[in-house]
Amino acid sequence: MSAQHPGDDPRSELRQRIERFVRDTAIPIEERLGGSLHHADDQLRTELQDAARAAGVFGPTIPVELGGLGLDRTAQAWALEAAGYSLVGPLAMNCAAPDEGNLHLLAEVADAHQRERYLEPLARGSVRSCFAMTEPSPGAGSDPRLLRTTATPHGDGWRIDGRKWFITGAVGASFAICMARTSGEPEEPGGATMFLVDTDNPGMQVKREIRTLDEAMIGGHGEVVFDRCHVGPDAVLGEVGRGFDYAQVRLAPARLTHCMRWLGIARRSLDIAVVHGTQRRAFGERLVDLGLTQQHIADCVIDIEASRALVAVCAAELDAGLPGAQSSSIAKTFVSEAVGRVVDRCVQMCGSLAISDDLPLSRFYREVRPFRIYDGPSEAHRWAIARREVKQVAARLAQNGPR
Amino acid sequence: MSAQHPGDDPRSELRQRIERFVRDTAIPIEERLGGSLHHADDQLRTELQDAARAAGVFGPTIPVELGGLGLDRTAQAWALEAAGYSLVGPLAMNCAAPDEGNLHLLAEVADAHQRERYLEPLARGSVRSCFAMTEPSPGAGSDPRLLRTTATPHGDGWRIDGRKWFITGAVGASFAICMARTSGEPEEPGGATMFLVDTDNPGMQVKREIRTLDEAMIGGHGEVVFDRCHVGPDAVLGEVGRGFDYAQVRLAPARLTHCMRWLGIARRSLDIAVVHGTQRRAFGERLVDLGLTQQHIADCVIDIEASRALVAVCAAELDAGLPGAQSSSIAKTFVSEAVGRVVDRCVQMCGSLAISDDLPLSRFYREVRPFRIYDGPSEAHRWAIARREVKQVAARLAQNGPR
Amino acid sequence: MSAQHPGDDPRSELRQRIERFVRDTAIPIEERLGGSLHHADDQLRTELQDAARAAGVFGPTIPVELGGLGLDRTAQAWALEAAGYSLVGPLAMNCAAPDEGNLHLLAEVADAHQRERYLEPLARGSVRSCFAMTEPSPGAGSDPRLLRTTATPHGDGWRIDGRKWFITGAVGASFAICMARTSGEPEEPGGATMFLVDTDNPGMQVKREIRTLDEAMIGGHGEVVFDRCHVGPDAVLGEVGRGFDYAQVRLAPARLTHCMRWLGIARRSLDIAVVHGTQRRAFGERLVDLGLTQQHIADCVIDIEASRALVAVCAAELDAGLPGAQSSSIAKTFVSEAVGRVVDRCVQMCGSLAISDDLPLSRFYREVRPFRIYDGPSEAHRWAIARREVKQVAARLAQNGPR
Amino acid sequence: MSAQHPGDDPRSELRQRIERFVRDTAIPIEERLGGSLHHADDQLRTELQDAARAAGVFGPTIPVELGGLGLDRTAQAWALEAAGYSLVGPLAMNCAAPDEGNLHLLAEVADAHQRERYLEPLARGSVRSCFAMTEPSPGAGSDPRLLRTTATPHGDGWRIDGRKWFITGAVGASFAICMARTSGEPEEPGGATMFLVDTDNPGMQVKREIRTLDEAMIGGHGEVVFDRCHVGPDAVLGEVGRGFDYAQVRLAPARLTHCMRWLGIARRSLDIAVVHGTQRRAFGERLVDLGLTQQHIADCVIDIEASRALVAVCAAELDAGLPGAQSSSIAKTFVSEAVGRVVDRCVQMCGSLAISDDLPLSRFYREVRPFRIYDGPSEAHRWAIARREVKQVAARLAQNGPR
Repeated sequence: MSAQHPGDDPRSELRQRIERFVRDTAIPIEERLGGSLHHADDQLRTELQDAARAAGVFGPTIPVELGGLGLDRTAQAWALEAAGYSLVGPLAMNCAAPDEGNLHLLAEVADAHQRERYLEPLARGSVRSCFAMTEPSPGAGSDPRLLRTTATPHGDGWRIDGRKWFITGAVGASFAICMARTSGEPEEPGGATMFLVDTDNPGMQVKREIRTLDEAMIGGHGEVVFDRCHVGPDAVLGEVGRGFDYAQVRLAPARLTHCMRWLGIARRSLDIAVVHGTQRRAFGERLVDLGLTQQHIADCVIDIEASRALVAVCAAELDAGLPGAQSSSIAKTFVSEAVGRVVDRCVQMCGSLAISDDLPLSRFYREVRPFRIYDGPSEAHRWAIARREVKQVAARLAQNGPR
Repeated sequence: MSAQHPGDDPRSELRQRIERFVRDTAIPIEERLGGSLHHADDQLRTELQDAARAAGVFGPTIPVELGGLGLDRTAQAWALEAAGYSLVGPLAMNCAAPDEGNLHLLAEVADAHQRERYLEPLARGSVRSCFAMTEPSPGAGSDPRLLRTTATPHGDGWRIDGRKWFITGAVGASFAICMARTSGEPEEPGGATMFLVDTDNPGMQVKREIRTLDEAMIGGHGEVVFDRCHVGPDAVLGEVGRGFDYAQVRLAPARLTHCMRWLGIARRSLDIAVVHGTQRRAFGERLVDLGLTQQHIADCVIDIEASRALVAVCAAELDAGLPGAQSSSIAKTFVSEAVGRVVDRCVQMCGSLAISDDLPLSRFYREVRPFRIYDGPSEAHRWAIARREVKQVAARLAQNGPR
Repeated sequence: MSAQHPGDDPRSELRQRIERFVRDTAIPIEERLGGSLHHADDQLRTELQDAARAAGVFGPTIPVELGGLGLDRTAQAWALEAAGYSLVGPLAMNCAAPDEGNLHLLAEVADAHQRERYLEPLARGSVRSCFAMTEPSPGAGSDPRLLRTTATPHGDGWRIDGRKWFITGAVGASFAICMARTSGEPEEPGGATMFLVDTDNPGMQVKREIRTLDEAMIGGHGEVVFDRCHVGPDAVLGEVGRGFDYAQVRLAPARLTHCMRWLGIARRSLDIAVVHGTQRRAFGERLVDLGLTQQHIADCVIDIEASRALVAVCAAELDAGLPGAQSSSIAKTFVSEAVGRVVDRCVQMCGSLAISDDLPLSRFYREVRPFRIYDGPSEAHRWAIARREVKQVAARLAQNGPR
Repeated sequence: MSAQHPGDDPRSELRQRIERFVRDTAIPIEERLGGSLHHADDQLRTELQDAARAAGVFGPTIPVELGGLGLDRTAQAWALEAAGYSLVGPLAMNCAAPDEGNLHLLAEVADAHQRERYLEPLARGSVRSCFAMTEPSPGAGSDPRLLRTTATPHGDGWRIDGRKWFITGAVGASFAICMARTSGEPEEPGGATMFLVDTDNPGMQVKREIRTLDEAMIGGHGEVVFDRCHVGPDAVLGEVGRGFDYAQVRLAPARLTHCMRWLGIARRSLDIAVVHGTQRRAFGERLVDLGLTQQHIADCVIDIEASRALVAVCAAELDAGLPGAQSSSIAKTFVSEAVGRVVDRCVQMCGSLAISDDLPLSRFYREVRPFRIYDGPSEAHRWAIARREVKQVAARLAQNGPR
């Protein structure tokens, strides 16, 4: 038993509800879809969300006043891990990316009108959204300062022009939060603004759905073009020029909820591998009793527990109102790599069976790989972690005087 | 330049022919198929093989008297790596698994009649074949002694009963080499015999094609049932009861040619990543000039060169008539893991683009994963390597007297 | 900032006191000794402990009623890391192994007489102790069931016979807690009893001090022989036959305080490497701005933060009265390996200078290596972690019904 | 059996002689010295070299005309690995660093007079030498262009001024090959010249012997000061201004012989661990039959065989007259890390015993660590490997036309 597995915690009843819902409702749908959600339709989504609501597990990250469970980040850790135990769980419980992060951002920044028009339907699950930030090369990828999409004043509103890609959930979304440059040039910091754009705006088009290794995000990953896309003055989210600040507001928590959800897949993979290894024999022993398998299992356990512990540290910081930039970079880097290692070892433990579709492991193997790239590749996070560390050491030693 | 890149070698002209053929003929077909060959039809295969013959690159592993190029193992190393630079190359050049290994086995063991009926058409590319050895649990997987398929005397021939799976190329093959137990019980060594079974035999059926993470083997991976499958006395390959010996004959070279081919994919992945990193910029520099990218590139180079070097050692042993059991286990274990690391790093270097189908990297990522499982998982090889090492140390120290 | 770095925590004042004490008092002594404490004399120890008492940092793990600071495990995490920032810190603050673990064990199990005679002087720092459990092969090493030292009834007391080694602090200790078999045979579980043995007992002899890679434990690592060692009935610690239970009482917390202390050395190593890299240049940049150095720094930060997070999880469990067997195994395994990686990378970052005695890094490199072996090698912990995991999965799935 | 273990090779008789010499003569001396050679005296060296001469194993890398065995690089691979099986072997056989590399350099570049005065006595073992290139920060370390030691014309000769450190073998050497700048400024390439300096020159002083983690190099690692060190015109080795070129001549082969020698220690460590694991039991089995130990053994075997294979590739290039810059960087990087992993795993397999001086493993652990730093740290090699790779890919693709 670990601190992440509250036994007599008053909230453990909720945890059990989530586990039951995922096992009884989410996993059967996942199996029916072969784990592929890119083209799941909104009717299925609505049915799933109704079932989650009926089971009392809808909206763990959504504030109570918006109809959710209003868990703090610390509690979200186990709730989203339990949801993420199935690829379908987060969608059903309305805590999947990108809506979950967009909800958080809107709750922090949107004005009253925007709350009513965008936030409330999103919280209810009536609509889906997307977050239109990343651009194909040479635009904003790992290095957001390269932002090339522009918004120029037009009438009393704005005209947006540019190309975005890997816009998750774009197909079928009702609105996009679009990041565009309102001043300055690419490679310069600053000058970005966020806009709320209805997807039926004739100036916004999903050019194609990008075929990708992963397939578990409803609406897929779109390539989106803004071409003379006119929006009114009320489309500005927050203040003009503060887009990069708001991106930070969304960033750390969104990274962290990714970690929580993917830990569910890691945990499920290990369950599958342990069950498999308990039922099969080789060289006269159960697979789980062979030394090389035991090493895989132990390493999976260590990776999962270290991931949970790092998530807990960052969640506690966010709950304490701290920005969590360093701790969320650390958690994202470690967890994305740890989850990859766990699923890889579980594939190895199940052998050819894991390569086949008879088990969901090869699907999970595909799904978790992009996590080391999406939301900042490990390399960009390591670069940022090292730079912050060097500054912190300098500051600490300056304060303490010479050693 | 390394020993594997012969410059003034008289055979380098052949090498260049292969490279040209792969670049101009194989890769365009691969791109057209999206790298998926499981359902490629035999007409395409025939056209490709005709093109390879016309280009003078057909049959690098096939003896000259059977119409091939008759390269020794040492030369096969660079020839098959060059062929494997495209997923389509080995099929076109008739040096793909499982036919390549079956050809080698038949050339060693088949009698005159079997040579004419099976080996010669296979060498010409008129037909395809499969190797029916592995069984679903609790049968012969990592531990071949668990063989459960039986062959019992029937009339003057045999009757084969059992279930096989992951039989690569089963759909569309003309004949199978089937391993069956002719004496003893599962978990006992010995007692296995190989049979040549025509796939139009009514007792042999491909029950299903297993859907798998990889998709680059023509004919896919089948689940095959032998049910009262009657064959004549001439179906026995070699001698009754020597099946495990013949499996060894096939095993070490087949492992090694796998390594050679997959090194081609590793090399191609690195080429793609380096070209990508030369064209893109971040943080004010070309990607290939960033330290973290340089580390990835250097580690890829080291992995590829160490793989080639281990392949060369094993190839030299086989060319010298040695069995190569230890060196092929070492090469297979190292190369399968190194190729996986190389492709994974190249995906990381190309970021989201590598996750999309705009580059072939995510396809390669899927194709190379099973290599750590097929032909003996790394764990089984490590177990065997350690046991042989312990014996060798004991023998060496016994010989030298006490230290 | 992370949860382990309490800013406005009321106890942060204590933390600063410890940091100041370590910087101003412990590190200068460490430098004078070249980091080698095996032969530090008790006068130095007494002076250091007086200084710690004067600085208000003596006894962070010792209960208040015994004159210590009485921190819970969660607070010990940062206190012992700060102490362990110097090899000399834990000794000065009377929270070094093995006394720290022995104190905890005695506080849990000793009777009133034993408390007065052994526990209280130990808590004051008047004496040192040792824990005589591990035996040379074929006795109790990784596998404690192999215990061969025997205690047989003799008069109204006992006679102890056997050989122990790697008994840390044996030279100069006033008493030993000796584990001996009072029933059963080696390889059988159960049957062990703990005895308090005064080191001036003529039946107990330190045969030799074992020369080891590490040199930072006062009293070194002794090989101890019990030969017709007679003790009275009051020498039994707790109850006869419960030795293995008491070993568990000592084990999990002792593992964890090791982790805390060694994290101090990891943190100090990184400080040294970052300072070094800030002051040196190569290829036209500060070392800390080179990509490959940044990767080392980031990986060190991740390893340290994950270690702290796992320590925090286990400490919270122990504070909640849970046994912490699994979480302390996980923490010990991960932290011992992470600390090793951190120091190794810091050596690499400082180059030749780190190989020389001009920096303490090569000393640290030697000191941390045995941590992966002492207190159970990583392999034994992984074996135990895997076995517990398999049981937990079975129990959880049985409870939930079939998936 | 592998290609590195020639069975019926005509030279295997020599190999057996070396193995016998190392086992019967070198290892006993090593054990007597506790593996520490820094302060071995020249009388011992002379006795050992006489014994090697008598055994027919003196000078494997030395040309026949200079009294050695004249092996090519390919044969040196197994000869130096066999010599390096003991820390004392290379010294005894006069193939230790730095003399071995200096001999090679002098044989390539020295004029007739220099050959007689320096090369011939060095080849006979009458004297020792050192190579004075590396400087303390901010001088020439990983980045040789930072060279700060200067040589300025003085009379008809030169005056050398500067500070060098980590000059292996400086104490007791008869002469130094000193690298000094004769034109240009630090950070500029070019402008370096090599000088032969007699160590009794009053302008050259060994200021101190640096205390280091490793202790197996006779004469230790010195800090050397050149202060108004006057030398004649005949002190110039080769041509003025070509120092960096000659450093390259020395570099690749010297890296490679390091790899060969350290592979001997890796091989010996594994022998020790396997013998240990064959004799000890835990959990009811021999240690070598436990899965986690088998993984360690297999990984050691793979690391050793891949190292040998990479050494063989580079040796073949050097024997073919190629420069071997890339292949020696690859071999040095891989082998230095692989040897470190092997020794580390062997320590782990032998547990506490390996931490004690009862086995030589902790000595080996200390000796092999600097190899990842000396002769260019892994980071510098990776940087160079990546840059060469990027250039090669560009050249290859330019030649082949667009893909």
